[in-house]
This record gives sequence, C-alpha cells and structure tokens, in this order.
Amino acid sequence: MRIIGLHHVAFGHRSEDPTVGALQALLGLEASHVEPGDGFVERMFPIGPDSVCLQTLEATGRGVVERFVQHRGAALHHVAFEVPGLESALRELQEKGARLIDDSPRPGGGDTQIAFVHPSTFGGLLVELVESPAGN
Amino acid sequence: MRIIGLHHVAFGHRSEDPTVGALQALLGLEASHVEPGDGFVERMFPIGPDSVCLQTLEATGRGVVERFVQHRGAALHHVAFEVPGLESALRELQEKGARLIDDSPRPGGGDTQIAFVHPSTFGGLLVELVESPAGN
Repeated sequence: MRIIGLHHVAFGHRSEDPTVGALQALLGLEASHVEPGDGFVERMFPIGPDSVCLQTLEATGRGVVERFVQHRGAALHHVAFEVPGLESALRELQEKGARLIDDSPRPGGGDTQIAFVHPSTFGGLLVELVESPAGN
Repeated sequence: MRIIGLHHVAFGHRSEDPTVGALQALLGLEASHVEPGDGFVERMFPIGPDSVCLQTLEATGRGVVERFVQHRGAALHHVAFEVPGLESALRELQEKGARLIDDSPRPGGGDTQIAFVHPSTFGGLLVELVESPAGN
C-alpha cells in the first residue's frame, strides 16, 4: 500500500446551496471538470499547483449524495487517496482486516478506477482509493 | 485572493475512535506533527510528496472539537487553503460580502496564522485560510 497523494476531498450539497458560486466568486476557483454521476453532478476544482482538487457533489436526483445531504445537510463527504495499484491495495487492506464497500475497482469520474473503504474502518472517515488512468 | 494550495483537510474524532491507529496500520501514514489545542490534540499526516496533510482533531476536553463530535459524530470538519497574505485576503472576502468567523488572523498550529470563514458563506463548507510562517 503506497499512497502517492491526496487526489481530492469531496463536499456534498444541494442544488440550492451557494457552494459552487461562492467558490468561484470569493476564492477564484474554477471547475476543471464537470461530470454527471448517478443522481449527482461532480465538479473538480484544482487547488494551487498540485494536482489535488476540491470535489463538489451536487445532488440532482435519487442516490447516495441525495441521501447524504438529506441526513447530514451539505457537508464534507470523503477524502480520496491516489494509489498506483488499486487492486493490490484492496487485497492488502482486506488481509489487514479492513472492511471494504467496493471489493474490486469500479469506474470513477475522469476515467479513474475507484473503490471505497467502509467508514467504520477509519472511525467514521470515508476513504476512497483512486487509480488514475494509465500514463497519468 | 490567491490560493496557493490545499494546506490540510481536517477530521474530528473522539479518543476511542480507531482513526489514528488505522491510518497508521492500514495506510502507512505517519503523523509529522502533534500539537495540543484548546480541548483537542491535532495530528498532521502528510499525504504523498505534496505538502498537503490530513489533519486529525482528537477531542480531549471541552471545546469546539468536542461539541462537533457530540453533534455530528466523528466526521470531516473543514478544509484549509493556504494564502500568501491572510490579512488582505480577509479584507477582500469581507468586501465581497463573505461572513467571517475570525475578522483577523490568529495563531494556528505549527506557527501558522489562521482564520475561519463562516460555513454559511460556502453553503455549509467550513473553510480555514492559513498563512505559513514567513520564509516557509
């Protein structure tokens, strides 16, 4: 298991929340990537010269983001760490007793492969592991 | 207002939560800095070669972290953006109508100067601005 960087930190919100507009107007952040998901729209806001992003997840229909914001209100949702070999990282975590949400990699935004670790593993912290497309 | 990087993302938890041990045992992360605050202990876990950290805030007594975890449970708490001139950044935010928690810079961990923006400004996202010590 080798974490090569923080890929993004994600914030879930509703369409009526001023989050996206305020990030642009007050902090000068611009979304480099906007992509619809299953009941949500994700936007990636690069922060500074590093590749790390603030990801906003706008609930636009039924799904995991809508359930999150109904339960918690707009709130930070997860952190995503980049790993070079996601499949082997998941096997290593399982061998060490981690509880996984995704037993194997699945497609994420921006042609990544992703998997979530159950938040009970880290005492309530939802961790996503991300493998970037080959060559990136 | 120029954000030069994501300084850290913070997670609040209780002493009995397995967060710190699991970050070490499962992800191989090591705290580079441990510092007591007002009713909490903060630990900084550098992530990859960039300077960005996962910050854990362990509630150890009465204070803002304890109130947060009593209300929300262990959860992600805020994101901290690094800015080169904190005082002028705060004036710019005020002129643009942002609601501030801290009207002027105050001391943070690691000899930084910090200020928080009220979460209503970003639709529920608690944003900290950080200025690193001169020369860093």
